[in-house]
Amino acid sequence: MSLIDDLQWRYATKKMNGAKVPQEKLDYILEAARLAPSSSGLQPYKIIVISDKALLEKIKGIAFNQSQIADCSHLLVWAAWDGYSDARISNVFNATMDERGLPHDTMDNYKSVILNMYEPKGQDWQAHHAAKQSYISFAMAIAAAAEQKVDATPMEGFVPEQLDELLQLNGTGYKSTVILPLGYREAANDWLVNMKKVRTPKADFITEMTTADAAQTDGAPVTLNLETIVKK
Amino acid sequence: MSLIDDLQWRYATKKMNGAKVPQEKLDYILEAARLAPSSSGLQPYKIIVISDKALLEKIKGIAFNQSQIADCSHLLVWAAWDGYSDARISNVFNATMDERGLPHDTMDNYKSVILNMYEPKGQDWQAHHAAKQSYISFAMAIAAAAEQKVDATPMEGFVPEQLDELLQLNGTGYKSTVILPLGYREAANDWLVNMKKVRTPKADFITEMTTADAAQTDGAPVTLNLETIVKK
Repeated sequence: MSLIDDLQWRYATKKMNGAKVPQEKLDYILEAARLAPSSSGLQPYKIIVISDKALLEKIKGIAFNQSQIADCSHLLVWAAWDGYSDARISNVFNATMDERGLPHDTMDNYKSVILNMYEPKGQDWQAHHAAKQSYISFAMAIAAAAEQKVDATPMEGFVPEQLDELLQLNGTGYKSTVILPLGYREAANDWLVNMKKVRTPKADFITEMTTADAAQTDGAPVTLNLETIVKK
Repeated sequence: MSLIDDLQWRYATKKMNGAKVPQEKLDYILEAARLAPSSSGLQPYKIIVISDKALLEKIKGIAFNQSQIADCSHLLVWAAWDGYSDARISNVFNATMDERGLPHDTMDNYKSVILNMYEPKGQDWQAHHAAKQSYISFAMAIAAAAEQKVDATPMEGFVPEQLDELLQLNGTGYKSTVILPLGYREAANDWLVNMKKVRTPKADFITEMTTADAAQTDGAPVTLNLETIVKK
C-alpha cells in the first residue's frame, strides 16, 4: 500500500466498535507523530494519550458528545506551546546541539532572528503558530494510522478551554489544539463509511503560475540571508 | 519502506542540485496533498505550483535568499482562505452533496453550527484556522515526497505579505501560508544532510493521562450533539 492508497482507505470514522489498538501499532503512530518536522525543529507541542474510559466519557461531554471519544481505543490530544520565549527555544536548541556534539551557541544568531520575528507578533499569533506545527504532527499520525489500518477521526469539535481545564493544562504553557481518537470502525452503524470521498477537483485545487502571472515587481527588499545565519 | 522509514529518510534539505522531479512524482505528491483531511471537509486552501526560474528567483528574494527556492524543481505554495463565509462554505458543501447524490440542504444545520462558532472569533482567527488545515495537506505532501524519494524543504521562512503581492493573491480571498521546494539534494554542499535528526525524546513528548490526573469536574455543559446535527 502506498500513502495515496492509505489516504483513500481512511475516512473520518463516525462510529467505532470499542476494540483495542495493539500497543505496537499505537507506538508506531506516536513515533510518526514524533518524527514530524516543525518550524526550526522546535516541536512546540506534545501528545497526551488517554485510554481511561471514565476520562474519555468526560471528554466526550466537552466534544459535542461525539461517540468515537468513548468508543475509541486511545485518544490522542495534541497540546502546543502558548507562546515562544528565549528560554523555551534555548531549551530545544541546546538539546539539539548536545545530540549533535555542537556548542550551545551555534544557534544563537538564528535564535535571535526568530525571536525578533515572533515577539512583535504577540502571544496570540505565537500560539497559533505553535498550533500549526502540531497539525503537521497530527497529519503524520493520521497517515500512520491509515498505514497500520487503524481507524481515526481527526477532530477539532471540542471546547479547547474546557479540555485544557479538564487535563489541567492551564499554567503548564500548553494548550490543546486538536484530538484524534484511534480505534476500529463499526461499519454497520457508521453513516459516513460508504459515502464517496469528496475533495476539491484537481483543476481547482492546483494552479500553475509563471512570471507572466506574477506581479511585476523589482524584486524584494529582504536582505537577510538565513543560510549564513544558521551555518555559522 | 514504511512511513516511519520515510520520515527517518527525509530531512529539511538545505542544498538542492537543480534536477527535475518527474511529472508522475509531482502529480503523486500533489494528489496526497489533495486527499488530506480538513475540518468539516472544507479544504479551505489550494496549491500554487511554480517551476518558472525567473519567478523562483523573485521568490527566493522574499524568502531570506534560501537557495533551495532557486535550485528546486518545483515550488509548492499553499494558500488558504482569509476567512469563512456562508457562501464559501455552501460552495464546498453543495459540491460534496452533488457528488454524493444528496440534497443541498443536508448540511444546512451543520453549516449554521460552524458559522455560529467561527463568526464571533473574527477574521484573524478564521485565517489562522484555515491556515492550520493547509498544514495537514502540507504534511501529507512532505510524507508523499519522502515516500517517492523526492527531497523537500518545509519552509515558513518567507514574508507572506510580499509573496501574496508577488503571486497576486490580494483580493482573491487566499493568503500564502507555507511553501515546499521539491527537488534533489546536493549532499556534498548540504550542511544538514549528515547531522543527526533530533526530536523531543519520547518520554517528554508523550504523556499518558487517567482520571486520577484530570481535574475533578462535574462534567461539562456542552449539550450540542454533533452527530444528530450532521446525520439529519
